[in-house]
Amino acid sequence: MHRFFKITRQSQNSRARLGEITTPHGVIQTPVFMPVGTQGTVKAMRPDELAQMGAEIILGNTYHLYLRPGHELIKKQGGLHKFMNWPGPILTDSGGYQVFSLGKDPEDRQGARSDANLNSTRTTKLARITEEGVYFQSHIDGQEHLMTPELSIEIQRALGADILMVFDDCTPYPATLGETRKSMERSLKWEERSLVEFRGGDSGNKNLFAIVQGGMYPELRKECFERLMEMGKFSGFAMGGLSVGEPINQMYELADYTGSLIPNDYPRYLMGVGMPADLVTCVDYGIDLFDCVIPTRNARNGMLFTVDGFIYIKQAQFAEDERPIDPSCVCYTCRNYSRAYLRHLHLAKELLSSVLSTLHNLHYYLNLIRDMRTAIVADRYPEFKKEFLERISS
Amino acid sequence: MHRFFKITRQSQNSRARLGEITTPHGVIQTPVFMPVGTQGTVKAMRPDELAQMGAEIILGNTYHLYLRPGHELIKKQGGLHKFMNWPGPILTDSGGYQVFSLGKDPEDRQGARSDANLNSTRTTKLARITEEGVYFQSHIDGQEHLMTPELSIEIQRALGADILMVFDDCTPYPATLGETRKSMERSLKWEERSLVEFRGGDSGNKNLFAIVQGGMYPELRKECFERLMEMGKFSGFAMGGLSVGEPINQMYELADYTGSLIPNDYPRYLMGVGMPADLVTCVDYGIDLFDCVIPTRNARNGMLFTVDGFIYIKQAQFAEDERPIDPSCVCYTCRNYSRAYLRHLHLAKELLSSVLSTLHNLHYYLNLIRDMRTAIVADRYPEFKKEFLERISS
Repeated sequence: MHRFFKITRQSQNSRARLGEITTPHGVIQTPVFMPVGTQGTVKAMRPDELAQMGAEIILGNTYHLYLRPGHELIKKQGGLHKFMNWPGPILTDSGGYQVFSLGKDPEDRQGARSDANLNSTRTTKLARITEEGVYFQSHIDGQEHLMTPELSIEIQRALGADILMVFDDCTPYPATLGETRKSMERSLKWEERSLVEFRGGDSGNKNLFAIVQGGMYPELRKECFERLMEMGKFSGFAMGGLSVGEPINQMYELADYTGSLIPNDYPRYLMGVGMPADLVTCVDYGIDLFDCVIPTRNARNGMLFTVDGFIYIKQAQFAEDERPIDPSCVCYTCRNYSRAYLRHLHLAKELLSSVLSTLHNLHYYLNLIRDMRTAIVADRYPEFKKEFLERISS
Repeated sequence: MHRFFKITRQSQNSRARLGEITTPHGVIQTPVFMPVGTQGTVKAMRPDELAQMGAEIILGNTYHLYLRPGHELIKKQGGLHKFMNWPGPILTDSGGYQVFSLGKDPEDRQGARSDANLNSTRTTKLARITEEGVYFQSHIDGQEHLMTPELSIEIQRALGADILMVFDDCTPYPATLGETRKSMERSLKWEERSLVEFRGGDSGNKNLFAIVQGGMYPELRKECFERLMEMGKFSGFAMGGLSVGEPINQMYELADYTGSLIPNDYPRYLMGVGMPADLVTCVDYGIDLFDCVIPTRNARNGMLFTVDGFIYIKQAQFAEDERPIDPSCVCYTCRNYSRAYLRHLHLAKELLSSVLSTLHNLHYYLNLIRDMRTAIVADRYPEFKKEFLERISS
């Protein structure tokens, strides 16, 4: 039914599964973690470094590339793959999130739009939401732009994305049931317009994912999913509006529940999540795709992942520590550098600090995904998950 | 006589020559360009990237590494080579220049100490010079330190440098004959103390270079060189106090003249120079070693070298330019990226901009050195120089 996605192995004692997604730029294995390449580059990484450490697909940001250097320019340059020299698959977000979170760290996916209200036309600090779309000011030059579902799809098509995302309305947190429903209804209208635009234009053999909204309300998540399913032509389903400030257990419950709504033969994508424990936990719910800036952004801030958690490399205890970040890690950084050296680079604000730290953290995430796949093959995912969560909290 | 240095080919129609310098960490070919690794890293470069593009020796900064992370720490970590994962030779400067240029860009070698006067004890903004040495304030935490010839050698030894430099007094520009002589006399005393310290301690099979000072006065350059030669135990001679703000032709004349003083069987090192045309010109004077931050610092500022000069990548004319920086260049950057993409990265202040631009500029310098060596082998250095200078000025 969905040649795009094929389950290659289903755990017997968990909802975790292995799958394959076939895109115009190659086949990817799931579960998968997508490094974030906001501005046409995964920060500090050469594409060949990404490929060497096993990255299979990366995420590009529609909002940022639309504003700079512009999607038309990238299209003329042969598309985003050629422009940034990444030959593998690319998923683009829709810009729906970013148009609300302007003026913040472009990589910050937390706590956006806390000043929003949910009247039919509501205003955030820099964005104004109407039925037509979102008026927003560029964070670069202050110019006003209007982002619509149609424009978002046009941009993603110009970029040449392999997987496109619908344009949706990001429900703020916290929000009442009534506010959340209003936001969800808008999302459903915009998602349908995204689908119409996607099917009306020349989208080749690209694929469009829907986004299930509904905030913190399971009944709205269910209704939203069912109405999206009725639209009938999506290649996969994402879960939006999670990891926006709610308690972690509530996030897990909603990911678990929403994941259970989506039939097995569709890929499930949990957007913007998360920490290693989140990935390990949510793969158990049958979730297949993840993206997050944590490994890259936190690398630049000196938070480095280890087999039993993470360390802050700036701490004085590492000043003369000759060990690598993680003695069990085989990444380029751990094979060649001590904590003492990495601490020095971090304190000296050297560019190589970002390079070596990002290399390590992304390798950690991609290796964690490989470990999860191995556990699924061995039909011991629940044991793997238990051991992992115990180890990092010990 | 000097097993350390061997001339392997002498041009018949120029003073340009090929040589070999044997160090504890390998043999290097001269003429050679040394990328600058100020804080224990050539900015934005992995050491394997440097090796791949043909870097044979790098320069480390005594001043910076003394202040952070400290030479004792690096020594305990096994020395600078191991600490920074660079297996090849390292030359360290003495810190003599940096103690006067604090509070400026650590890579800025231009225009230091213009506020200096040359009384027996003179004071710059952050440094106070006495016969004993230089009192200076750390640019990191404001603490006062005293740098002496003895301490400089001790630091360089702790770092494990293959080639050490004497601690000298950097003559400001401009300076009168009397001021320059006073500064030169101080340099000679400090260089002799450096030599005593070097020979008194355990310096293994390391080598110490003297620095010929004398400002803009050929007669002082001559006297300085002769008195250094009488000290008798240096492995090579550097020219200091050039490219400090004087007209370029004056720099050339002094490099030419000072180079002619140094016997053929010693390596000649022109410190802190320079632009590509400077290297091509000064190799013709029989100069063998160069270091400069221009390729790395200017890369980060978007100045990229090409076969006929350079471009500023931020210019609007490159917005949709699909060509590489230089169509004749075979570096990783030019094989994979367009000017349009590099301009985008530069404007977006992406880390990868520094990585790709530094890769290209260093490759350009190292390739230029290879071209010079080829011309020397073919006994056509004068023609090579003429063609090069005509091409970049056209």
